Amino acid sequence: MPASPAIDYSALAGELRSGNRRALAKAITLAESTLDAHQTQAQALLTELLPHTGRSIRIGISGVPGVGKSTFIEALGLFLIARGHRLAVLAVDPSSSLSGGSILGDKTRMELLCREEAAFIRPSPASGSLGGVAEKTREAMLLCEAAGFDTIIVETVGVGQSEIAVAGMTDVFVLLQLPNAGDDLQAIKKGIVELADLVVFNKVDIDPMAAQAAASQMRSALTMLRPASPHWQPPVLMLSATKKEGIAEFWQTIEQFRITMTAAGDMEARRKRQANDWMWQQIDATLRHRFRSHPAVMAALPEVTRNVTSGILPPALAARQLLALFK
Amino acid sequence: MPASPAIDYSALAGELRSGNRRALAKAITLAESTLDAHQTQAQALLTELLPHTGRSIRIGISGVPGVGKSTFIEALGLFLIARGHRLAVLAVDPSSSLSGGSILGDKTRMELLCREEAAFIRPSPASGSLGGVAEKTREAMLLCEAAGFDTIIVETVGVGQSEIAVAGMTDVFVLLQLPNAGDDLQAIKKGIVELADLVVFNKVDIDPMAAQAAASQMRSALTMLRPASPHWQPPVLMLSATKKEGIAEFWQTIEQFRITMTAAGDMEARRKRQANDWMWQQIDATLRHRFRSHPAVMAALPEVTRNVTSGILPPALAARQLLALFK
Repeated sequence: MPASPAIDYSALAGELRSGNRRALAKAITLAESTLDAHQTQAQALLTELLPHTGRSIRIGISGVPGVGKSTFIEALGLFLIARGHRLAVLAVDPSSSLSGGSILGDKTRMELLCREEAAFIRPSPASGSLGGVAEKTREAMLLCEAAGFDTIIVETVGVGQSEIAVAGMTDVFVLLQLPNAGDDLQAIKKGIVELADLVVFNKVDIDPMAAQAAASQMRSALTMLRPASPHWQPPVLMLSATKKEGIAEFWQTIEQFRITMTAAGDMEARRKRQANDWMWQQIDATLRHRFRSHPAVMAALPEVTRNVTSGILPPALAARQLLALFK
Repeated sequence: MPASPAIDYSALAGELRSGNRRALAKAITLAESTLDAHQTQAQALLTELLPHTGRSIRIGISGVPGVGKSTFIEALGLFLIARGHRLAVLAVDPSSSLSGGSILGDKTRMELLCREEAAFIRPSPASGSLGGVAEKTREAMLLCEAAGFDTIIVETVGVGQSEIAVAGMTDVFVLLQLPNAGDDLQAIKKGIVELADLVVFNKVDIDPMAAQAAASQMRSALTMLRPASPHWQPPVLMLSATKKEGIAEFWQTIEQFRITMTAAGDMEARRKRQANDWMWQQIDATLRHRFRSHPAVMAALPEVTRNVTSGILPPALAARQLLALFK
């Protein structure tokens, strides 16, 4: 975004709320900007729009490259649009700043969905850290809600850390799996399965027997993990996104999840906890950043760290010494 | 500890290193004190003693009440003392400050071990938070090492959080289990199994068939979890502490763990990471404490939190507002 005169964010908010896609795109770009002046405007815009957010269902979707995320999201999106829904697709991809690209940058991946007026697709912000990318995606999600999208999908890539971030900003976290046991083990070892409210095997038409075996192994693994809510035992679904088989059952399960969790009060509790956690994450990150970039701390840290790890300085004393420098 | 004239910590350090048990007990009490003057002395004492620490093997042992932890630790302790070892038994019990008691407070639980000159048993410090209890236990561990104990056992209770603390201060983390599948599930659901370098089924003499089944289920669960080190797949052992069966095999496995992990460089790497993590945990905790107890932040926090969780204030803006008050 080029340097420009102050944006009339109140007018922008009005256009965004009326469903103007360019206003939405502009607001997201503003929120993604790292300029202080833009951040101040973005926060003012968000504050004005907040009363109009929160009415969507927020769905996180994760899976390794090749699992068919785009095909699945496109099939689901077209299914939902045909039923009158409006759908926004966002992404958290911490690698996008390194690769210069984005998992959603190539819009041809969802060619049919892109042409729909009721769909809004936005690539992952290409800023530095995962924390930064996640924060901007969270804000883009709120802006999409204010623009009237009732279903938000946040896609991510299956590396572990980004799943934790996406599960921390969505109502329901879906793990998309390939029907083979090796993929299962990868997801379990990376700690992704324990975040899942729902596990979906895609491409089950290729080898139905193998898919049944993988699903059964996943069900047994899930019984051994701690579910995120006592009111919901994560189910395992089978589908074929290319053949558009199983999409209706998937949506039915999401609806069931929403009904069950809302009735139990878990939906609201999860969102409140997420908002509070999000505030504290930013406070903690800022405090630590201020601490680490304090000149006296920066000067002392290398030697103190060396002395702590080589066992000649007690960690508690090291902490005290560094904290004494931070004024 | 009553208010007293300044302690000659250099003399105390000398007595402690010569193996004087009263000096060791006094030093631990000093480290556990919450008085600022005592803390300064304790840190000076620790600094003087640090070059003489780190030569023990630090073993964390967890298990639910009734699993037979005391019987097992006593059997192991007597086995080790008979082979010339010197053993210290510490505890992390965050409930001790609430109950006024301690899981190790009742010394009659390890009656034979208590009588041994080569054993030192210390109950869990009864201070407030888990972080505080863990910190003091870590320092007690260092003091025991300086006093010449070559084996440190840190016992805890099986609630989840305290296991993370104990695994963060020991070289090897042992999960003691009862031979029934329900106990397995509890430990898996609480996330304790994934911390284990070694799982031990106790009381296997009562129902050997059931024990075999439980061990086999645990082995299969362990293959699905991410091991703490790529060089060690956690084994499952069976023993009967009351019959003193399986103690030698247990110790052989600990020795094997030490040899394997030392050769791989993982032992040293784990200790360095633990020391560095410990320093940063204390820095983060202090920064957050300073932040939360800052008068302007304290005054604003309740309303800001209410506005964030009720969705009328964006979390990022809330964080900025609170951070602006913290000067």
